[in-house]
Amino acid sequence: MAIQLGENRYGESGVRLLRVVKQEGRHDIKEMTLDIRFEGDFEEAHARGENRSILPADTMKNTVYILARQYPVEAIEEFCLHMADHFLTYNPQVTRVLVGASETLWTRVPLGAKPHPSTFVRAGEEKRTATLDGTREETTIRSGIDNLVVLKTTNFAFEDFRRDPYTTLKDSRNLLLSAVIRADWLYESEDIEFGPIWHGVRKTLLENFAEHDSRSLQNTLFAMGEAVLSTFDNIKEIHISLMDKDCRLADLEPFGMDNPAEVFLLSDEQHGLIEAKVRKTQ
Amino acid sequence: MAIQLGENRYGESGVRLLRVVKQEGRHDIKEMTLDIRFEGDFEEAHARGENRSILPADTMKNTVYILARQYPVEAIEEFCLHMADHFLTYNPQVTRVLVGASETLWTRVPLGAKPHPSTFVRAGEEKRTATLDGTREETTIRSGIDNLVVLKTTNFAFEDFRRDPYTTLKDSRNLLLSAVIRADWLYESEDIEFGPIWHGVRKTLLENFAEHDSRSLQNTLFAMGEAVLSTFDNIKEIHISLMDKDCRLADLEPFGMDNPAEVFLLSDEQHGLIEAKVRKTQ
Amino acid sequence: MAIQLGENRYGESGVRLLRVVKQEGRHDIKEMTLDIRFEGDFEEAHARGENRSILPADTMKNTVYILARQYPVEAIEEFCLHMADHFLTYNPQVTRVLVGASETLWTRVPLGAKPHPSTFVRAGEEKRTATLDGTREETTIRSGIDNLVVLKTTNFAFEDFRRDPYTTLKDSRNLLLSAVIRADWLYESEDIEFGPIWHGVRKTLLENFAEHDSRSLQNTLFAMGEAVLSTFDNIKEIHISLMDKDCRLADLEPFGMDNPAEVFLLSDEQHGLIEAKVRKTQ
Amino acid sequence: MAIQLGENRYGESGVRLLRVVKQEGRHDIKEMTLDIRFEGDFEEAHARGENRSILPADTMKNTVYILARQYPVEAIEEFCLHMADHFLTYNPQVTRVLVGASETLWTRVPLGAKPHPSTFVRAGEEKRTATLDGTREETTIRSGIDNLVVLKTTNFAFEDFRRDPYTTLKDSRNLLLSAVIRADWLYESEDIEFGPIWHGVRKTLLENFAEHDSRSLQNTLFAMGEAVLSTFDNIKEIHISLMDKDCRLADLEPFGMDNPAEVFLLSDEQHGLIEAKVRKTQ
Repeated sequence: MAIQLGENRYGESGVRLLRVVKQEGRHDIKEMTLDIRFEGDFEEAHARGENRSILPADTMKNTVYILARQYPVEAIEEFCLHMADHFLTYNPQVTRVLVGASETLWTRVPLGAKPHPSTFVRAGEEKRTATLDGTREETTIRSGIDNLVVLKTTNFAFEDFRRDPYTTLKDSRNLLLSAVIRADWLYESEDIEFGPIWHGVRKTLLENFAEHDSRSLQNTLFAMGEAVLSTFDNIKEIHISLMDKDCRLADLEPFGMDNPAEVFLLSDEQHGLIEAKVRKTQ
Repeated sequence: MAIQLGENRYGESGVRLLRVVKQEGRHDIKEMTLDIRFEGDFEEAHARGENRSILPADTMKNTVYILARQYPVEAIEEFCLHMADHFLTYNPQVTRVLVGASETLWTRVPLGAKPHPSTFVRAGEEKRTATLDGTREETTIRSGIDNLVVLKTTNFAFEDFRRDPYTTLKDSRNLLLSAVIRADWLYESEDIEFGPIWHGVRKTLLENFAEHDSRSLQNTLFAMGEAVLSTFDNIKEIHISLMDKDCRLADLEPFGMDNPAEVFLLSDEQHGLIEAKVRKTQ
Repeated sequence: MAIQLGENRYGESGVRLLRVVKQEGRHDIKEMTLDIRFEGDFEEAHARGENRSILPADTMKNTVYILARQYPVEAIEEFCLHMADHFLTYNPQVTRVLVGASETLWTRVPLGAKPHPSTFVRAGEEKRTATLDGTREETTIRSGIDNLVVLKTTNFAFEDFRRDPYTTLKDSRNLLLSAVIRADWLYESEDIEFGPIWHGVRKTLLENFAEHDSRSLQNTLFAMGEAVLSTFDNIKEIHISLMDKDCRLADLEPFGMDNPAEVFLLSDEQHGLIEAKVRKTQ
Repeated sequence: MAIQLGENRYGESGVRLLRVVKQEGRHDIKEMTLDIRFEGDFEEAHARGENRSILPADTMKNTVYILARQYPVEAIEEFCLHMADHFLTYNPQVTRVLVGASETLWTRVPLGAKPHPSTFVRAGEEKRTATLDGTREETTIRSGIDNLVVLKTTNFAFEDFRRDPYTTLKDSRNLLLSAVIRADWLYESEDIEFGPIWHGVRKTLLENFAEHDSRSLQNTLFAMGEAVLSTFDNIKEIHISLMDKDCRLADLEPFGMDNPAEVFLLSDEQHGLIEAKVRKTQ
């Protein structure tokens, strides 16, 4: 019997960055958080403490700031591509680079009818995301959205489901559905206008969540995925997860009152979770 | 020497509630989190475990749901008033009721050019708040805003400040200022349209943060407070705190690069904090 | 009508620090988070952007590190005293200094039967705290403990409490009581051995929570406070808050099962909160 | 081109539970949080809103409480096995069950020299974990530990690493190393005494972190993994991740002071991350 090193990776997480681009009469900002991982031949570092192949995680962090200075950031996907390109070019010891980017969204403060040229308000907890998986042979990039919290008060039901002796849930219709949407998707080709597509996918997800006459969370998830794939030619797969937030009808019967879907108790703890991939086939 | 009970209070915290109001063709929602505290003569409960004067915190929670059923909630301030009125009416053992409300904001999902009638997206981390302090003689209510995160890239400076041997900060001008605004304010009278005033104060705070040619955080805070008091006749005092978020310029000199206020490092940990009351005097 | 500045203060929050003291064969560490606030005459800074009286919050942060280098930290209370002394000595424009310290606790990794001389494991979420309020005339220091989570399965009850039409809670006895203890206390004199007293108070609080045959949270809180004041001559007042964590008995009746206080549902959201001061009188 | 459903699963997350076992003179408690996922043929539910194969996530939650009532919980791994067995037995539509369990650790309050029979204090942020992946053919169970925060002040270095033009990190020796350990491991056989092995692995990880004369995080990780595999015959693979917490030496040179590894700045944001599997081979 011998003991050996298996799959391994290392890198820097949570590198936060704000990039300002100043043009005459208008400033733009972009806030990102980056995670970087290297895979490669790091056997000697693990087994013998021989560090010649280990570029410090601290250097990855420096590189983020340097590349952000060099490139006036437009889409986080493009920034991930610059990062991966840099690391694979200068690090023969690395066979694979993984980059994750999460964008914190800001909107301009309105000043009268116009958006302010240089003052911003944070747009919320929702994030725009990108994940890159790159080797010297192939690069895969996924765009995504995270923590998009939605709620609908009609047009959904959950009925005629499987029951066992431990089931107490009753058929329901038009109570309340609140979910946290997370999605990421894969492109057909590499020639993508990331910004407009991201906004388009977000709009399609929201509209289909809103308008779908849902028979279950699974049913709505699939409808949302189908709508995205039907609308966007260059998306070939989407992965969606819906976190079903706990919204229970307050029981007012002990006080002689009804509660016709008006007062709900909320919780952010225990919740349902549904996830699926939806994809195009030939 | 004797040992005796001093100031004391008890209650229920973090009671979360979603209220739905359904009208033909349009549903409205309001999400709130409530904190309730009672003060009164609870000496016997503490000293002898005699509970006759202790209405359970659990009953406070029930009462929140019941009152939410009875009142189609319009402004959180009004809901606080209903709560305090109920508790003071039915609990002679209570001398003072404190109610804190925090509203989680939702906006309608846009559907084409129109807002959707029954589907919502959570608007962010910002909260609308209200705090009530009520006795049988007097009720004070404050409206507020919390966790409003803003950022400006020009029109501020911090120069000619006091220095001591441990000071390393340099004079700065038009780097980057990011702050978290918290504010709450007190009314002159009781006849207030809480909703429109809240939106007005928020707009005034944001516009003055944006437009003020700031010489310090203190200077901007005071300008914001002054603007609110000048604009709204029925506000007599405002308390503002500005949390100065850490945004340091990335040092790219070691790499032979300048950084003309373009790339910043961010952190949510250590931060400055400025707070002040601004008030009208006769 | 005029508009004027009211109470105001500023400072630095969340300054984190780890201090290592190395002796032959044994290293000691102390981790602290500091909050500092200045009060004084800052009218000109607010109203006119005149910064001559504003020592930057950034300098407060530098000062924390410098003082930590100068003083081999023993008790956080002593470190707060050094801070306040420094700031009041060198800043005539400041009339009052507030310092809050929170210590993250570490224990030594055990190595066989002995504690390791230089390796530590973080002891949990519980914090040791200190708060100092100092002017040139007077300094008040309070020691404290925060986030001490406890649970007992017997020797408590909550019965014969006040009921109203909205009360559904039933009398209970020996179900389950889980609470988060926060406490801080005030000393009679200034000549205090902070470390031993802190450990003594913690022990007294825990033992009395454990052993008190409780008739309510209020009753237990008072017993805990009384025990601390009776045990420690040099403590003249203690403020205790008990956050009553939500632990509901799982209702297994729908499945034909009883649940004799064996299976509980937990939540960290909604909770009760009881707080009181207990003090000595002449 | 067609659109079709790919990999999918659903379930309930964050089900929290406290189990009390009462024996004469001694009560025991166990706190767990459970995540459950089902995989199976859910095509019709997604595509047509036909719910006959969907056992509600709410039923999973009920089942957790019911099984907790039936089994006096000993090890969380055993509870996961009961859960998977139940779901696979009664749900032919399910092909795979995934269960994750995380145990919140409590210790007894000491009362004099003895542990209290029925009062507990929460032991910290560290969790004991288990993950089960079960089909009708095969069940894999992994035990683990999460969020074990450690720190050492000597016996490590990071030198002679790879450098590029963006590298600013200097060789270091005996500064400060703080890491968050997460690990999970796989057993050779099914006949395991989960409790004693978990405590043994924890002890081995801590001792090796403490005693290893480290040349890098990778080097320490491998040594820790090797020690676990050498010590425990029935563990065949361990996956370890070390999150390298940011601990920078305070720069006191501007103030004319040295800092011989005594004062450090801490942060919980940006951090390095190293992870690897170590396994036995024939």
